[in-house]
Amino acid sequence: PDRADGTGKAGDQASEFGQQLPGPRLGIGMDSAVIPLRHGGLSLVQTTDFFYPLVEDPYMMGRIACANVLSDLYAMGITECDNMLMLLSVSQKMNEKDRERVMPLMIRGFRDAAEEGGTSVTGGQTVINPWIIVGGVASVVCQPNEFIMPDGAVPGDVLVLTKPLGTRVAVNAYLWIDQPEKWNKIKLVVTKEEVIEAYQEAMFSMATLNRTAAGLMHKYQAHAATDVTGFGLLGHANNLARQQQNEVAFVIHNLPIIAKMAAISKACGNLFNLLQGTSAETSGGLLVCLPREQAAKFCSEMKNLSSGAGGQGAVGGAWIIGIVEKGDRHARIIDKPRIIEVPPRGSQAANQENSSTSPDPSPNVS
Amino acid sequence: PDRADGTGKAGDQASEFGQQLPGPRLGIGMDSAVIPLRHGGLSLVQTTDFFYPLVEDPYMMGRIACANVLSDLYAMGITECDNMLMLLSVSQKMNEKDRERVMPLMIRGFRDAAEEGGTSVTGGQTVINPWIIVGGVASVVCQPNEFIMPDGAVPGDVLVLTKPLGTRVAVNAYLWIDQPEKWNKIKLVVTKEEVIEAYQEAMFSMATLNRTAAGLMHKYQAHAATDVTGFGLLGHANNLARQQQNEVAFVIHNLPIIAKMAAISKACGNLFNLLQGTSAETSGGLLVCLPREQAAKFCSEMKNLSSGAGGQGAVGGAWIIGIVEKGDRHARIIDKPRIIEVPPRGSQAANQENSSTSPDPSPNVS
Repeated sequence: PDRADGTGKAGDQASEFGQQLPGPRLGIGMDSAVIPLRHGGLSLVQTTDFFYPLVEDPYMMGRIACANVLSDLYAMGITECDNMLMLLSVSQKMNEKDRERVMPLMIRGFRDAAEEGGTSVTGGQTVINPWIIVGGVASVVCQPNEFIMPDGAVPGDVLVLTKPLGTRVAVNAYLWIDQPEKWNKIKLVVTKEEVIEAYQEAMFSMATLNRTAAGLMHKYQAHAATDVTGFGLLGHANNLARQQQNEVAFVIHNLPIIAKMAAISKACGNLFNLLQGTSAETSGGLLVCLPREQAAKFCSEMKNLSSGAGGQGAVGGAWIIGIVEKGDRHARIIDKPRIIEVPPRGSQAANQENSSTSPDPSPNVS
Repeated sequence: PDRADGTGKAGDQASEFGQQLPGPRLGIGMDSAVIPLRHGGLSLVQTTDFFYPLVEDPYMMGRIACANVLSDLYAMGITECDNMLMLLSVSQKMNEKDRERVMPLMIRGFRDAAEEGGTSVTGGQTVINPWIIVGGVASVVCQPNEFIMPDGAVPGDVLVLTKPLGTRVAVNAYLWIDQPEKWNKIKLVVTKEEVIEAYQEAMFSMATLNRTAAGLMHKYQAHAATDVTGFGLLGHANNLARQQQNEVAFVIHNLPIIAKMAAISKACGNLFNLLQGTSAETSGGLLVCLPREQAAKFCSEMKNLSSGAGGQGAVGGAWIIGIVEKGDRHARIIDKPRIIEVPPRGSQAANQENSSTSPDPSPNVS
């Protein structure tokens, strides 16, 4: 395939992507830094993220990078953003022509997603580097009622996830189509068409803003939330559990996963650990702790907004995946979690089955 | 020498550094983005910068990176910063041991400089990359009287520069000590000891915060300012001239340069263009337009603060370098500018001559 970075190194970069080190967020366990200001009870909330391209389409990569940065604000229930800065590096391996073709598209994608988030990009920095880098900074000045501190979960709450898992598996499987040695490992469980559909689903899902979910967190009195990225669902669930004021534990019963990605992960042994909850996601959904009586309504409204606004793409989905009980501030996945196969949008399965964003609490959540 | 990045590539990175592309600051000609907020007349002012190590000492490199980021706020006369984020990449070529030795020092340097700037680092992002990257984001929420828009220069103003030029020449010449082919080009005009002293001077100068100068911009009614970085003195002077409300031109008569760096630049032909004003600087001084009657006082106070607070290192210096006249919003350097040789701190010359931050207007500025 025609690599977005013009170097044929997208695969390397995608695998490198899983190795992100935890940033220097000393003293801060939250997705964004919250800084009380000198001015009338206001706080500055801000976050930064940058990484390497992991999809071929430069425009979509720009959108994904922007969605990923904004997601840290959305995880705190913040729906507005006052400003974005863009962080870019141009690959020194790209020739002038590739550079002029690729970089403006990536910048356009980033800007378009920022606009969808009601904000704009007014600055940034670009350097030359061996690899392409794309990322940004999102900042907002808030009144106290505009954000939800991620520490209020109580026993009895329900856990909701707003995007399916499996983006990393999908991105890697897609690269393997051209690598017979790797493809042979998974060809018994998946077709090439299914992998392409899953890859596209992952791409659209990663490019989806978590903004709608952030707005609904207020409407349905969410107690805490985080976004699911490099540490995988369980990693981020553990991070969130650790910050809770109450002695709670998160128990995850259901794993909504892009269709067939669970099968690929199983076929690859311990390579991804998708079912163990530690497969890295990029620009994943929000993991939200909601009062039990609100969770189904939250999911239902997410679903309605999805189908109303041009399909799931516009706002993501929503699945009840577990519960909050008394415990020692850890998260775990039950022994045999229910796998919810999420059909890629536009696929036959998706057209037949209109319940991909099913709000029905599973039997496990009773 | 023992490379700070453990890869022996510091030279490549330093030379790459001159090739920074202008960032995507569309619609913004200023050093920082200024975003009016929804809350009572306040503005969010923020900036980001990141680049590659160019000195060997990781601690100093951290300080320089932080000083460089904050400088964009200082250029607008802002002396406070509400928050910093740190942007880092660890080189994939470093082994575990080098990584554990180098990165904490770099982070410490960055944090210490942030603390000196009265702020702190509460977040960031770290990735793995072929090269080390270090940079950050600085943000502050301001009332209108806290910043000075860089567009108020009037004919008759005087131009002041608060750090000597020549950092890039010094950094490169230092690397050439171990490269006989390059060293042969300059050995007739400079000694090894002079290059080492110049390199150290450049390092301390780059690590110096422009905060004191920013404070004095208010006290002495500065009309506009910018900081001197990748485009060199003339490049940034032109950028600043272009933004002026009045039809003015900047004429530069004097070039304060770290001692011997002018001679090296001449010996290297057109490699640096230091005397032409386009040699890249890192974390350079502020170029400030001051009312004529205030310029000498500004320089004098900078000098007093320097000698009071442990030498030039703490606040930088200050030199009158030119004038503002009527014109077409461009900057130029006169045909034979006066070179002010700035002796490295701690050198014999510096100890003898106490006038390195001389506020005397030169004969050219009459």
